[in-house]
Amino acid sequence: MIVWNSLSGEQQQALLQRPGVAAADNVRPICEDIMAKVQQQGDSALKAIAAKLDKRSTEAEILCPQQDIIDAQQQLSEELKAAIDQAYTNIKRFHQAQQPKSISLSTQPGVSCELRYEAIDAVGIYVPGGSAPLPSSVLMQGVLAQLSGASTVVLATPVKGDEQVHPAIRYAAKLCGITQIMQIGGAAAIAAMAFGSESIPQVNKIFGPGNAYVTMAKQLAAQQVPGLAIDMPAGPSEVLIIADSRANGEYVAADLLSQAEHGPDSQVILLSDSDEVIAATERALERQLATLSRADIARQALAHSALIKVRDIDQAVRISNLYGPEHLILQLGDSTPYLNNIKNVGSIFVGDYTPESAGDYASGTNHVLPTYGYSKVYSSLSLLDFYRTYTVQTVTKNGLADLANAIIPIAEAEGLDAHANAVRVRLGASS
Amino acid sequence: MIVWNSLSGEQQQALLQRPGVAAADNVRPICEDIMAKVQQQGDSALKAIAAKLDKRSTEAEILCPQQDIIDAQQQLSEELKAAIDQAYTNIKRFHQAQQPKSISLSTQPGVSCELRYEAIDAVGIYVPGGSAPLPSSVLMQGVLAQLSGASTVVLATPVKGDEQVHPAIRYAAKLCGITQIMQIGGAAAIAAMAFGSESIPQVNKIFGPGNAYVTMAKQLAAQQVPGLAIDMPAGPSEVLIIADSRANGEYVAADLLSQAEHGPDSQVILLSDSDEVIAATERALERQLATLSRADIARQALAHSALIKVRDIDQAVRISNLYGPEHLILQLGDSTPYLNNIKNVGSIFVGDYTPESAGDYASGTNHVLPTYGYSKVYSSLSLLDFYRTYTVQTVTKNGLADLANAIIPIAEAEGLDAHANAVRVRLGASS
Ligand SMILES: [Zn+2]
Ligand SMILES: [Zn+2]
Repeated sequence: MIVWNSLSGEQQQALLQRPGVAAADNVRPICEDIMAKVQQQGDSALKAIAAKLDKRSTEAEILCPQQDIIDAQQQLSEELKAAIDQAYTNIKRFHQAQQPKSISLSTQPGVSCELRYEAIDAVGIYVPGGSAPLPSSVLMQGVLAQLSGASTVVLATPVKGDEQVHPAIRYAAKLCGITQIMQIGGAAAIAAMAFGSESIPQVNKIFGPGNAYVTMAKQLAAQQVPGLAIDMPAGPSEVLIIADSRANGEYVAADLLSQAEHGPDSQVILLSDSDEVIAATERALERQLATLSRADIARQALAHSALIKVRDIDQAVRISNLYGPEHLILQLGDSTPYLNNIKNVGSIFVGDYTPESAGDYASGTNHVLPTYGYSKVYSSLSLLDFYRTYTVQTVTKNGLADLANAIIPIAEAEGLDAHANAVRVRLGASS
Repeated sequence: MIVWNSLSGEQQQALLQRPGVAAADNVRPICEDIMAKVQQQGDSALKAIAAKLDKRSTEAEILCPQQDIIDAQQQLSEELKAAIDQAYTNIKRFHQAQQPKSISLSTQPGVSCELRYEAIDAVGIYVPGGSAPLPSSVLMQGVLAQLSGASTVVLATPVKGDEQVHPAIRYAAKLCGITQIMQIGGAAAIAAMAFGSESIPQVNKIFGPGNAYVTMAKQLAAQQVPGLAIDMPAGPSEVLIIADSRANGEYVAADLLSQAEHGPDSQVILLSDSDEVIAATERALERQLATLSRADIARQALAHSALIKVRDIDQAVRISNLYGPEHLILQLGDSTPYLNNIKNVGSIFVGDYTPESAGDYASGTNHVLPTYGYSKVYSSLSLLDFYRTYTVQTVTKNGLADLANAIIPIAEAEGLDAHANAVRVRLGASS
């Protein structure tokens, strides 16, 4: 346990410091090489790279067969299928409510202005592989692409050896109406979506988390391909819990461990004004750790975690605002007085019965959230990330005559004669 | 005049190709050097750099004195003051209508989810200098910062020698409630806003166009400072005009020249189905050019412009969608049948009396728009760019009992025991 008020300002800062996340030196040249090959040789490069890195047969299809997407549910337990259905429904409900509405108004007589929303036409979604399939990652991106009405959606996910794409991934994709699943991962998959290939359509925006190679490839693609966008920067996952004296140490420990099991670099912080809750949490952590399959990973993350004693909950809120956590859990008797003072956060989990795993999977909110302090300026993933806006203006001749009083003097002050002249020629005045 | 249908597919592509915009090799090291100095030495570096690059006295203030902001209007003509007032009012009206609304709903019984908007706390606005002051650039960014309620707004603009910040800039800033005007430009100004200095507060997001040094410094800042965001990539300005056979060649020419006078790299394209309109436009271009103070610049831009004959207006719309222009002007008898087929555009100007200069200054729409084909995926600047979103969820015990049917099977499929356990401990089931 660390007592916040016993620390110097510098020590307090150091405690909230995130670890460096620079990629290894060789990541960039490896990605550049892979991406150049995919750009130049298309599908044949994709097959060669998958054979080399993922031990795929060079005969293996780049796209998952349609029938395998349709049949996925037969390979799932009823329980898992129902779980994915329920998560899908809640996520869809919350994001459907985010459908943007165009705005139209007259700023002055004869001058009408509109802001219009249009779905991004072609999007790519990356779903990491690794030790387990991540159907939640499909839903958190795929539902939004589906709601936006994007005309092209490509999902990419790595597959090793002679495996199939996991049925939970295929089923989640099917719910989201995704028909193109690229069974290739890493920088090659990002390159295929960025440049296009014989099998893979070029997309306008690439979403999704991934390892250092995927992250680097996304950055390189955004630099190399004019007009291509990528989603927000991703860093190690984080939770900060604020617990008062009536909080249950078992619940607090369970939430800290949910975060810790994500990876050894997970950031885990508890702020409490109660010595007893902190002590109970420490005991519960040991008890629960013993039961976890990923206890080793969780232990590594906990080694650099911090259980911090604060003076009061107001101080805890101020510390949280400084840190700007991805996930903030409020295990408080009444969170209401604090909620409006909270700034800089990705998602807030209110009360004793709202574990982080609720938002990770099924409450309906998005689990793609800004990490690494980016909550000060970046947003949780929302339906708007699958749209862009443009404006439309229509001015009548009388409207222009009045607007001329604004346009011509400013254009002249800015030294832009032709801008003033474009008004004058229309109003019949001499240019 | 070029006839679109006489070109091969490759020639058509080449015609719509944007020029390369890579910065010169020495831009990056120069920026890195300036930024490191500002980060290490703060105000004293800012003063030394302004003395060296802009011939400022080392005694000159970094911030424009408050009284000079208050007194600005006394140094403006009544006409220019009224023009800035009118533009301010229209821009404010259009962007005020974009105020975001939080969303709150129950996704299922006992599960409430919210999407909340919060203003980005501290923003920096860059206004380029050069041959003339740009009050419109202040308004197009400053009004949005003001409407968002950002608690810190810093405006940076270069000043040479013993000049003052131009009164039109100061007056526009005053309307927007901006009290901090940094009278320093270039990479040093970007560094000051990114890192903070004794006089300049650190900001969360930096907006605004600039030369190659400013653009590079923004990119470097975003890479170097965790949590810092920058606005969209900027490229040379562009207009595409679609004109039918009843269009007025004088109006078309005036709009082409408005774009051409911005800079030698401006992109200027006319699509018309009428030989007569194209010929009339060519004649009008020469006549109007003779009257312009920036004729030299406009001529350079026109040298790589294209006046293209199309089969019909539908074909013109398809070409425009391929190109994705920043500005699209429709000089058509009736634009309505075409408007909903238009994709990939920053801002549309409808009809004979809506010149581009209306939107540049005063209609109310924002003149910060995606260029270089980024309209396929990026948005025109809107009030939302000064906000970020976060989510809040609150689950009751009964809500969690039902949500458990979704959370636990997916968590187990993903191999994340602790995530499942965080639900089980709360529901009293064995972990
Ligand atoms: Zn999690
Ligand atoms: Zn212009």
